[in-house]
Amino acid sequence: MADLVESKALSGFQDLLPDEALAFARAVERVTAVFRRYGYVPIDTPCIYRYETLTGGRAGIDKQLFEWRKQEGAPGARTEGEHLALRFDLTVPLARYVAANFGRLAFPFRRYDVGKVWRGERPQRGRYREFTQCDFDVVGTSAPAADLEVVLVVADLMEALDAGPFVVRLNDRAILNGLLDALGLRGRGDEVLRTVDKLDRIGEEGVRDELARPGAADTPGVGLGTGAASEILAFVALSRAEGGDALLARLADRFAGNPLASQGVDRLRFVVQGAQRLRAPERFAVDLSIARGLGYYTGTVFETTLTDVPGFGSVCSGGRYDDLASQYTKNRLPGVGGSVGLSRLLAALAGRAVNAAESPCPVLLATAPGVDPVAALGLADALRRAGIGVEVYPQAAAGADVAKIAKQMKFGDAAGKTLVVLLAPDEIARHACVVKDLRVGTQEEVALAAVAAAVRARLGEAV
Amino acid sequence: MADLVESKALSGFQDLLPDEALAFARAVERVTAVFRRYGYVPIDTPCIYRYETLTGGRAGIDKQLFEWRKQEGAPGARTEGEHLALRFDLTVPLARYVAANFGRLAFPFRRYDVGKVWRGERPQRGRYREFTQCDFDVVGTSAPAADLEVVLVVADLMEALDAGPFVVRLNDRAILNGLLDALGLRGRGDEVLRTVDKLDRIGEEGVRDELARPGAADTPGVGLGTGAASEILAFVALSRAEGGDALLARLADRFAGNPLASQGVDRLRFVVQGAQRLRAPERFAVDLSIARGLGYYTGTVFETTLTDVPGFGSVCSGGRYDDLASQYTKNRLPGVGGSVGLSRLLAALAGRAVNAAESPCPVLLATAPGVDPVAALGLADALRRAGIGVEVYPQAAAGADVAKIAKQMKFGDAAGKTLVVLLAPDEIARHACVVKDLRVGTQEEVALAAVAAAVRARLGEAV
Repeated sequence: MADLVESKALSGFQDLLPDEALAFARAVERVTAVFRRYGYVPIDTPCIYRYETLTGGRAGIDKQLFEWRKQEGAPGARTEGEHLALRFDLTVPLARYVAANFGRLAFPFRRYDVGKVWRGERPQRGRYREFTQCDFDVVGTSAPAADLEVVLVVADLMEALDAGPFVVRLNDRAILNGLLDALGLRGRGDEVLRTVDKLDRIGEEGVRDELARPGAADTPGVGLGTGAASEILAFVALSRAEGGDALLARLADRFAGNPLASQGVDRLRFVVQGAQRLRAPERFAVDLSIARGLGYYTGTVFETTLTDVPGFGSVCSGGRYDDLASQYTKNRLPGVGGSVGLSRLLAALAGRAVNAAESPCPVLLATAPGVDPVAALGLADALRRAGIGVEVYPQAAAGADVAKIAKQMKFGDAAGKTLVVLLAPDEIARHACVVKDLRVGTQEEVALAAVAAAVRARLGEAV
Repeated sequence: MADLVESKALSGFQDLLPDEALAFARAVERVTAVFRRYGYVPIDTPCIYRYETLTGGRAGIDKQLFEWRKQEGAPGARTEGEHLALRFDLTVPLARYVAANFGRLAFPFRRYDVGKVWRGERPQRGRYREFTQCDFDVVGTSAPAADLEVVLVVADLMEALDAGPFVVRLNDRAILNGLLDALGLRGRGDEVLRTVDKLDRIGEEGVRDELARPGAADTPGVGLGTGAASEILAFVALSRAEGGDALLARLADRFAGNPLASQGVDRLRFVVQGAQRLRAPERFAVDLSIARGLGYYTGTVFETTLTDVPGFGSVCSGGRYDDLASQYTKNRLPGVGGSVGLSRLLAALAGRAVNAAESPCPVLLATAPGVDPVAALGLADALRRAGIGVEVYPQAAAGADVAKIAKQMKFGDAAGKTLVVLLAPDEIARHACVVKDLRVGTQEEVALAAVAAAVRARLGEAV
C-alpha cells in the first residue's frame, strides 16, 4: 500500500463543517436579499490577475500577495504573462471590472460581490489566509444620498443577520483632511490617518508619540512635532466628549472658514441625521476617531460594532472615495460602499438564530430489511413534494450490506434529524409506517396516506 | 498623470456582467434548494493546497495545475511548504476534507459544494481556466439506492433549472470491467475506457484503431489487437441497437457466469428501472458507450444531455467509486455523486426562464430638484417593506450635481427598470407622486398613501 498523503489543510486555511457552511450560506442568502431589494446586482470577477494589474498604482499591499512568477513547466504561469497573483480584496477587482466593462454598465452602478480573497498574513487566531469578503458599492455618484443609503443598508444587514444591537460609527475624511490642510500637513494625510487609526490598539499616548516623533528603522513615526500631534488628538477626542448634534454644530463653527472640512461636516450631518430619521437613532453615532487606514477614502467613513460583543472590532466598514479606478481608466468614478466581514460576524454571533436556524432536512427515512428501496425513495419524493426535507438512509435490497435499524437510528441522531420515518414489512402490509420523534424518543404508527400531514404536525411542535 | 494599468482580464478568465451573475446566482439557489431537500449539506474547502496533497496518488492532472514554488520574498509560498497549487476540481478537495474531518462527519455523508476551480488549459471557446463547479456526493455507502437517488437528483436539478427535455444516459463500469476480465485485459481498464470514451470525438473506426494498435510516440494506442478491440466495440454498440429492458435481459444472459459484470448489470437495471418508475421513463436510457474517462469510477456512470440542444455534450455527469480517499486515509469510502456544469448549462439555456427571470428590483425612484433626499429614501423604505425592490437614483440636494429627470429616466431604461416612481415638489404638495411605466411610456399621478398598491398592481400587469 502506498504511503498516505497528508490531509491536513494548510495553516491559515479553513474547512467549513456542514453546520458552519450552512450558517454561512444562510447569512449570504440574507445579505443578498437585502442588497437586491435596494437594486444592488451581483457580479463575478476573476481570482487571478497579472501582478501589475493588482498592484498598479497602489503601494503597501504587495507584501501580502499570493503571487508567483513564470517557471519552466508551470502551465498556470507559462500560458500567460510572467507574474500572476491572487486577489487580496474585492475592491481592486471591482475597479478593474468597472474600467474594463465601462460601456456595458449603467451608472450609478450598484453591485455586490461575495467571494474568496487571499492574503499571505501570518496565521493567527481569527486571521485566515483565505477568507470570504462581502462587498457592496454604489459607483458613479457624489450625492451624499448614496452615503446615507449605504449606511441604511448596513443597518438592514445587521437586522437581517439578527446581529442584535449595533452602532454604526461615522466620520468624514474631509474634516480631518481639512484640519491637516489648516495645519500645513497636506500630503501627510495618509501617514497621519494610519497612525490615528491605531487608537484602539496603542492608545492615545501611543498615537501622540508616533505622530510627534520622526520615524526610525524600528520605530514608526510621522514627525509632526508635539504641537500638531496634540491638535490632531484634541480634535479626535472631541467626539468622545460630546454628543451628536452639539458636536456637529461645534464642528461647523470651528471649520466655517475651511471649505473642505465644511463639506465633510455637512455630509456627516446629513448622513447621521438622515439615518437617525429613518432608523432607530441610537444605532448611529459620530466618532471622529474613525479614520479607516486605506488611502483611497475621501469622504464618509464608518465602522460597525456589536453592542453585545464588546472588544470584537468592526463587523462592517466602508466609506466614500473620489475615484475608484484611476489606475485603470480616465473615467472619474466617485462612489461609496461597505464590506461585511461575514466570517468574523458569524463567529461573533455563535449560538444566535442565524447560526442555529432549523435544518433544511429534518427527516430521516429508514428502512427495515426486505423493504423495496425504490418504494422508500418514492415515499421520500412524496414528502418532499409536500415541502418536507427528507434524507433517505441508502439501503441495500439484500445481502451483507443491509443496514440494521439501530444503525440507521444512530445515524439520524448523529446527523441531527428531528424525526425518523421507518418503513418495515409488517407496517407496509397495513399501509402504514412508524414515525419516531428523536427529540423525545416516542414513536407511533401512521397510515402511509397521512404521513406527510403527521410529519408536518410533528415538526411544528415544540417539545 | 501616471500611465494607466491594463484592465483586461487574463485570457481564459471571465467577468460576469450583472445579468449573467444574477442568472448564475439564481441557478445556484435553485440547485441548492434541490440538494437541501434530499439532505445534502454544504461544505467549504480551501482553494490552495500543498502540491503533493492535490496530486498524491493520481497521475495526469498535474499538467493542468496552477502551481508555484517557494520564492525568495514571495509570502504566499514562503510561509508554508515549498510547493503550492490551486484546486482543479471539487472531488480531490472532498476526499481530503472527508479524510481530515472523518470523526466529525456522520456517514453516509451527503454533501454539495459550489466553488471555483482552476485549470491551466489552452483557452478556447467555452473553455475557461477559472470556472465554477457544482458537485454533490453521497459518501460512505455501497447501496445501489444511493446511485438511484443521485440519478433522481439529476432529474430534479434539470427540472429546477427549467432545462427542457433531457436524457440521463447510464452505464455501469463493472460491466465493462467484467468484460475486460473475461478478455484477459484486467489492469488495462483505464486505457481501454479512456479510448472508448472518445467515441463521440473520433468515431467507431478511430476507437477501434486506437484500441487495436500499439501506442507510439505521436500515436495513441492500447495494443489489444483487432480481435479484442472488435469485441469491445461490438459490446458498446449493443446499446445503440436495442432498447432498455431487452438490452438489460441480453446483458444478464451474456454475463451470467461473470460475477463482476453481473453485479454491474443488476445495479444498472435497478437504477434505470427505478428511475423510470419514479420519474418520466423517457428521461433515462442505458448507453453502454458512456465510460467517463476518470480512473476512479467503478460502478454506475452517467451523462446528461439536453434534447433541445443537440451536440452540446453532457451538462451533468458522475458515477460511483469504490474508495474516495484512498490516498489520504485507510477508511474505505465508497460513494456516488455527480457534477453539474453550471456555466455550460446556463450557456446552453440562453434565453430560457432561468436566464430571464424577473428583476429583483424593478422600480427606480427618481427625484426632481428640490425634493428632500431623505424623504425619497424613506418612501423607498416603505415600498421595500411592502415587498417591492426599489433602486433610488442618488440625488444631490442642491448644486451642480443635481441630476435632471431626463437623465434619471435614461438610467431607468439602461438599468432595465419596469417602473419609475417620480417625486417632485408640486406632486408632493398634493401628497402624491408620479408613476411612469417604462414598458409603454404612460404615467399617472398616484397618492403617496396608495403608491405601494399602485406599483404592485402595475408590476403584476402584462403589457
